[in-house]
Amino acid sequence: MTTPPLPEESSVEELADLVRTGQFPAFVDRARELEPADLADVLATLDEEERVEAVRALPPALSGEALVEMAAEEHAGDTLAALDTERAAEIVEELEDDDAADLLGELEPEAQRRILAGLEDRAEVERLLRYDEESAGGLMTSHLIKVRDSATVAQALDEIRRQSDDVEDFYQIFVVDPNNVLVGTLPLKGLVTSAPARPVREFLEETEFSVRPELDQEAVARLMAKYNLASLPVVDVGGRLLGRVTFDDVTDVAEEEATEDLLRFGGVSGEEELSDDWRLAVKSRLPWLLINLLTAFAAKAVIDHQQSVVVRLPLIAAWLGVVAGMGGNAGTQALAVTVRRLALGHVAPGDARRIIGKELLVGLLNGIANGAVVAFVGLATVGGTPMLGLVVGLAMIGNLIVAGVSGALIPLVLHRVRVDPAIASSIFVTTFTDVFGFGLVLLLARVLLLS
Amino acid sequence: MTTPPLPEESSVEELADLVRTGQFPAFVDRARELEPADLADVLATLDEEERVEAVRALPPALSGEALVEMAAEEHAGDTLAALDTERAAEIVEELEDDDAADLLGELEPEAQRRILAGLEDRAEVERLLRYDEESAGGLMTSHLIKVRDSATVAQALDEIRRQSDDVEDFYQIFVVDPNNVLVGTLPLKGLVTSAPARPVREFLEETEFSVRPELDQEAVARLMAKYNLASLPVVDVGGRLLGRVTFDDVTDVAEEEATEDLLRFGGVSGEEELSDDWRLAVKSRLPWLLINLLTAFAAKAVIDHQQSVVVRLPLIAAWLGVVAGMGGNAGTQALAVTVRRLALGHVAPGDARRIIGKELLVGLLNGIANGAVVAFVGLATVGGTPMLGLVVGLAMIGNLIVAGVSGALIPLVLHRVRVDPAIASSIFVTTFTDVFGFGLVLLLARVLLLS
Repeated sequence: MTTPPLPEESSVEELADLVRTGQFPAFVDRARELEPADLADVLATLDEEERVEAVRALPPALSGEALVEMAAEEHAGDTLAALDTERAAEIVEELEDDDAADLLGELEPEAQRRILAGLEDRAEVERLLRYDEESAGGLMTSHLIKVRDSATVAQALDEIRRQSDDVEDFYQIFVVDPNNVLVGTLPLKGLVTSAPARPVREFLEETEFSVRPELDQEAVARLMAKYNLASLPVVDVGGRLLGRVTFDDVTDVAEEEATEDLLRFGGVSGEEELSDDWRLAVKSRLPWLLINLLTAFAAKAVIDHQQSVVVRLPLIAAWLGVVAGMGGNAGTQALAVTVRRLALGHVAPGDARRIIGKELLVGLLNGIANGAVVAFVGLATVGGTPMLGLVVGLAMIGNLIVAGVSGALIPLVLHRVRVDPAIASSIFVTTFTDVFGFGLVLLLARVLLLS
Repeated sequence: MTTPPLPEESSVEELADLVRTGQFPAFVDRARELEPADLADVLATLDEEERVEAVRALPPALSGEALVEMAAEEHAGDTLAALDTERAAEIVEELEDDDAADLLGELEPEAQRRILAGLEDRAEVERLLRYDEESAGGLMTSHLIKVRDSATVAQALDEIRRQSDDVEDFYQIFVVDPNNVLVGTLPLKGLVTSAPARPVREFLEETEFSVRPELDQEAVARLMAKYNLASLPVVDVGGRLLGRVTFDDVTDVAEEEATEDLLRFGGVSGEEELSDDWRLAVKSRLPWLLINLLTAFAAKAVIDHQQSVVVRLPLIAAWLGVVAGMGGNAGTQALAVTVRRLALGHVAPGDARRIIGKELLVGLLNGIANGAVVAFVGLATVGGTPMLGLVVGLAMIGNLIVAGVSGALIPLVLHRVRVDPAIASSIFVTTFTDVFGFGLVLLLARVLLLS
């Protein structure tokens, strides 16, 4: 117990092997000892066919929780859809309503309808399925503990006992009026320290935070993280209590967002990418590459236009890549910092000028340092001259300034016009640094070396 | 109450203006109505001098919690250090022990000693300061609710009442033996539904998860996220209860890690970067640029070595950047996906071959698509020939395969040798794609166009 029970990769493989070799009774015995999240790891390493067999062998409650713990890209929905309707419905019925809705939300409409039709009690899940799965309504569960504002401590404790069979964890006890309008929460401390006849109204705490079901999950996650909330009530436009979102619902949201941001920054769209599916990979990467190819032609046009410089001075060709490439690197640095600041909401409207000013200065200083190195190399290596050193040194300084300014300016502008800066910035920045890098080297070479 | 009280930027600016214009009583009145996290936003928009004045004007409890909520890069420590010792000590004393240790942990050793000496009760904070701030010990608080395993329900409820004055939120009630060894937790439900004379031993739940104080904060965050834990006990080697980490402690960890990963991916080291400080920016970016410059010279050497091809065929110069640049883009895509999979722990040891195989295939397919486009352009534009189209098309295919394979292979190798793949991969990948891109274009041009 004193060492963290992080999943042993060996035991994940062992259990997977039991499935692969058809030893289902042994597999189920071992699976019973696992946390759902660990069993999910086992299911994720199996291929689709094996996973369906494993789920058939497991008790519905066990397999359901494990399927819920699987990440979206690990095809829990496909597995559920591959089961016969009766078994799939049994599994869904064992789940909490929000988990059931999440799992069913991953299915194709037809499979979803089929399994929903097999459920004994489907009203609640159907209601949750109506919310966008990336909204507060999509995250929330309607299982919660609530007491009436007219209750006494003794009545409230009775209610809690009664309702807590249905509710796995409760972080807040909600107090509602006769119309189910949320009026506050009960501090547990007050509840265990008060006389049984005391009305709960006397010590209820006003709810400071609540959200509407339409609120985007990213905003929900940010709100809960900022104010350290374990549980957040979701209310309709009339203030009536619909459900609650708990901290564990948004942990996954933060992880998804971080994945999305890093992939977008790397030029990959879509969250489906963290899989072994090459079709998805081509689909999510090729469009971006083709757009990049267009901009690469724009940069190529700069060189074509100055073809005569290359003809008269062939050794300049090798310098083009150095100056343009370094601009791309410096631009990416400025971009990463600015994109992350925007994502964290650290940029106030008045900050833009200061941020760009900083990047201009940083670009100048890094440009001088790198420019000095390339100037020296341009002067000292085979075929080099002091004038060549000056050309590449100045071009480097100029391009690193362009890199810094565009790396900050472009995401700021995109953010202002409500385009996600992570997705579109890098293409603009590297186009700028390529075009300016090539252009500066060739222009300076023409003026200083060839005239 | 039904709209989320997200911080209004206007009100943040209003409060900041009250400080700037010296209207401190009005500022303090407004500040009292704010959540600590919102007051932190106000303090963060002020400059250092104004912030110190604002903190002097605020009641110690209020300013302390706001300073704790400020992000690390927003210099809460500097503000504390700028106050006189007595005031700083007052502020620290109002905080929970883990928050006090976090805040003091940001100070220079001398300022830390000075303020610690001013505290009335400093043993607990000093003990917490001894742990690495990025470990479970650094995250934990020693304020928690615990009852003896020999207690009855009535005694346990008494204990909870007594101890809950000290404890802001409790998600678990810990049960310890006479030696303070953690033996389990009490379900709240059992507590409110059991007879007063019932021994708690009869319904305590075994603790499934606990960690040692040395465990790295990233592992703590991953454990809590994976198993949806609101609270996690920290125990020493003998199983004695030292403290607990709560979910809100690790929310910030996940955010920090995501920042670090994105910045590293963009070639920026250090977390200090999300500030307006140009000195820090140069310090954290210049080393990376200089390393990149070295690799750029390696790629340049490939062109210099094939200088005769450029002399005889100057129009090839413009194609070098296209093929190398596209390789860089495709390599970055493969890299982003692989780095993120590694960060999420989605890669088992046996997966490497499959991942590389997938990237090889994706590189081939994307190479064919982009190669077809450049081949057509190489054939159809001014100065183009079918043979030139073939050269650039084949070079594109080859380089995108190199890009995909190196984008997957390099982070996998670095991960295996325990180097963070996010920090070092991109430099290797772009070097590979530059060297191979230049080399392929020039080699194919020499063989197919010039011989």
